[in-house]
Order: sequence, then structure tokens, then C-alpha cells
Amino acid sequence: MAIKFHNPKSVTLAGKYSHGAEIPQGARVVFVSGQVGMDSRGKLQPTFEKQALQAWKNIGQVLKAAGMGYKDIVKITSFITDGRYLQANRAARDQIITEP
Amino acid sequence: MAIKFHNPKSVTLAGKYSHGAEIPQGARVVFVSGQVGMDSRGKLQPTFEKQALQAWKNIGQVLKAAGMGYKDIVKITSFITDGRYLQANRAARDQIITEP
Amino acid sequence: MAIKFHNPKSVTLAGKYSHGAEIPQGARVVFVSGQVGMDSRGKLQPTFEKQALQAWKNIGQVLKAAGMGYKDIVKITSFITDGRYLQANRAARDQIITEP
Repeated sequence: MAIKFHNPKSVTLAGKYSHGAEIPQGARVVFVSGQVGMDSRGKLQPTFEKQALQAWKNIGQVLKAAGMGYKDIVKITSFITDGRYLQANRAARDQIITEP
Repeated sequence: MAIKFHNPKSVTLAGKYSHGAEIPQGARVVFVSGQVGMDSRGKLQPTFEKQALQAWKNIGQVLKAAGMGYKDIVKITSFITDGRYLQANRAARDQIITEP
Repeated sequence: MAIKFHNPKSVTLAGKYSHGAEIPQGARVVFVSGQVGMDSRGKLQPTFEKQALQAWKNIGQVLKAAGMGYKDIVKITSFITDGRYLQANRAARDQIITEP
């Protein structure tokens, strides 16, 4: 079952996302907990870049355990402690999520 | 299918909302991305008041594209950069959303 | 219908939670509004500890009104104004939610 996207022309798109993402009726829905830059042995990665890459990888691992993948994401909330890291987080995301 | 609201008397209501909002089983569920004060041509509105009005309008446009309306909202998360804008955001919301 | 949890070994668990929580297909879904430390008479509790206890109790009251309980929670978002209160909030949660 495919996610249905809604992007009305009356609302500007300012990046790689959709304005509306509709879950197919009766679909399985998984909530993924907040992920941080900690690897499988509990070691926090040394830089923001590596922490961001690790967090996005972790999301993928949890989705995989549920039989899902990045393509099944309908909503992401990112809490970033400093606006200066915003671009680095997007770069990390784009490095990990290569699906459209 | 109507949303079912839950407002136990044991919890104080401090505004225009419900404590619990239940999605009908099998309903379509749409996630709307974060909206900002940018109009359809990508122009950021000049004041907080106008930005807030624009963001609430944008939410309505996305809902409309999905065949929904403000009455179908079960959850809103607002991130406001300064607590002093809280009332202005509520005023903008009430100006745009006139449905009960 | 039981919630299905997903905890792949490749992602470290750093507390009492699960990395993935899957809603059973066709389940009822209730969104609970943000709860604060205000009791049933609208009185804000005097300390952070009491406010946190009250907020967690309120969540339980709303869930109860919907015929649900803490065991039905699949996602919690906590906004805490000062990181120093993090442990106190967890302690309050663990005092109120004694179910596994």
C-alpha cells in the first residue's frame, strides 16, 4: 500500500518533503522513538556529523526490524540544539536516505 | 466518520481544545508538514501576525488538497520562537479557523 | 489487540522504552493533548515534582475516559523547560506508571 502525497500549488515547497502524507487505510503504523548519535555498543559518536549519520542509520534499523524502510516514513520530528547544525543534519539525512 | 472527543471532568480545560481526540477506526490519516509564514510565491510575510495567519491558511490548503478541512484536525504542534507571540498565534488561528 | 514492539540489537536501548511501537491494524487511536501540572480545579501545583506527577496523572485520566490506559501509549513527547528537571520527570513518570 502506497503513501499518498498532497502538494497543493497554493503552498510553496521549500525542500525535499511533501506538505501532506496520507497513510493508506488499514496500514500498519509504527512509531519510532527518538534516536541519538549512539552506535550499537552505546558509544556516542564524536562529532555532530557522525552523530547525525548514526541517528538516521538507527531509524533505518528500527524500521527494518518492523519490516519497513525509509520510504515508509510519513513524519519526522528533528530536535537540533543549535540552528547552525541544520544543514549538517540535512546532509547526513541525504547521505543515508537515498530513496526518493 | 466523526472524531470522538474525550474530556473527563477530572482534568481542567484551559482553552479551546479537547483532552482526547479519537480517530475513527479505518479513517484516512494525513500528516501535514510544518508550515511557515510563506505565501504561494515563496514570500515570507513581514510580521509575526501575518506569518501566523499564512501558516494557518497553508494548513487549510494542504488539508483541502487531501479532501479534508480544519474540522478533521486531531493534533497540532506549534513551535513558536518567543513566548510573547503565543497570544498572537492563537488570535491568528481563531481568525482562520472559524469552525467549532 | 496488543502493541507490537521492535527493538533491534543494532540500536542501543538507553532507558525504559522501545525503539519501535506498532499499532495493531484497525485499532482505535487517541491523541491526548499536552498536559500540565494543573489539578482538576485548575490549580497549578507548587513544585516541579508535583507538576510532573499531576501531568502524568492527567494523561491517565484522559486515557481512562477513552477506555484506555498507560499500557496503550505508543508515543510520548515531553517538553521540559530545563534539562535539570529531566530526572525528576522520569521519577514522576515511574511513580505513576507502574505497569510494564
